[in-house]
Amino acid sequence: MSSIKRRKTPEPTLRRLARYFHYLQRLIESKTDYISSTSIAEELNLDPTQVRKDIEYTGIVGKPKTGFSVPDLILSIQRHLSWDSLSDTFLAGVGSLGTAMLGYTGFKKYGLQFVAAFDNDELKISKQIHNVPVFSIDRLDYLARKMNVKVGVLTVPAFAAQNVADLMIKGGIKAIWNFAPIQLKVPEAIIVENAQITQSLAVLSRKIIEIELI
Amino acid sequence: MSSIKRRKTPEPTLRRLARYFHYLQRLIESKTDYISSTSIAEELNLDPTQVRKDIEYTGIVGKPKTGFSVPDLILSIQRHLSWDSLSDTFLAGVGSLGTAMLGYTGFKKYGLQFVAAFDNDELKISKQIHNVPVFSIDRLDYLARKMNVKVGVLTVPAFAAQNVADLMIKGGIKAIWNFAPIQLKVPEAIIVENAQITQSLAVLSRKIIEIELI
Repeated sequence: MSSIKRRKTPEPTLRRLARYFHYLQRLIESKTDYISSTSIAEELNLDPTQVRKDIEYTGIVGKPKTGFSVPDLILSIQRHLSWDSLSDTFLAGVGSLGTAMLGYTGFKKYGLQFVAAFDNDELKISKQIHNVPVFSIDRLDYLARKMNVKVGVLTVPAFAAQNVADLMIKGGIKAIWNFAPIQLKVPEAIIVENAQITQSLAVLSRKIIEIELI
Repeated sequence: MSSIKRRKTPEPTLRRLARYFHYLQRLIESKTDYISSTSIAEELNLDPTQVRKDIEYTGIVGKPKTGFSVPDLILSIQRHLSWDSLSDTFLAGVGSLGTAMLGYTGFKKYGLQFVAAFDNDELKISKQIHNVPVFSIDRLDYLARKMNVKVGVLTVPAFAAQNVADLMIKGGIKAIWNFAPIQLKVPEAIIVENAQITQSLAVLSRKIIEIELI
């Protein structure tokens, strides 16, 4: 393994790699074969040097003048983000957002395979939602251990989020994608990524007023 | 209006204000009356000076020693983010995510009031989804003008997103909350906030591998 692969990829780079990935997929649709980091930078309003450095993290080497083969660059980003293989994933909280997420087949493109969902609503337990079986939340930690699941998506209401996160960790889950608007308290070895939907909304809402204040 | 209110609030501050807001709401539930910026910083793992500066943007003044009244601080953040008043909002794309968003009554707490939704699926048009009427996407610009709607939520697939964003702008919409994984091209005066769900997932996915690489 090259030294570049061992280097920790900074979060802003990871977020931009996701944007390059989406842009490159549109290029595939328009049958573009090669792309330079300068063109990507122009299209996405970014600094070309930054784009070049971001892509370097994935380990791919471009050709002088022609740039990168689009399919190769997509594959390189997918590998770097581990989007080329599926992780068995639990989802806790089958409300409106949780149900939408179970129904979104696109997550497979990003490496998430929902194998079970959990809720405390008797009307949902033992049913299948979008072909994913729903179990009682009490069984989450036992089933996580039994099925060796390492990734959990948390779509429960804020007041329940810490308890359910604790159950996930008890069951051996290492990475939590948190959609509840609270700061989870977890041991240092556990990864929490907050989806930050309301943080995004805060930016939008304030900018609307700022336009009017000018 | 004080000079501090006219100053543009930086995006990272806005994102953190959303986090304080969620934390303060939990304090209300636990009947805490006063809070200092130092305590907020400790709870959310942030720098106390940063928290103090963020809160200053909202214009509230704390009391020496006791800090801020929790309800007053919540109100001050809500006002700063314009979450204390409702904006009529259109949603385009009534798929799984769009439907979930229409069903989430919590958005009212963040100033969004869905007044109409749009899709090109004949089976959805003229129906009501979670009490919001669904219209044909062709009518979006006309209805936006007629109803004087300034905020649009974009939950259509990536390939349709630019066209629908153009329709929103044609209808006079000034602020777009974009959930489609593409970079929209819009005039300078239009606000676009990308919800960046897959960017968040990129961070999570890579961190899972990095743990294993150590």
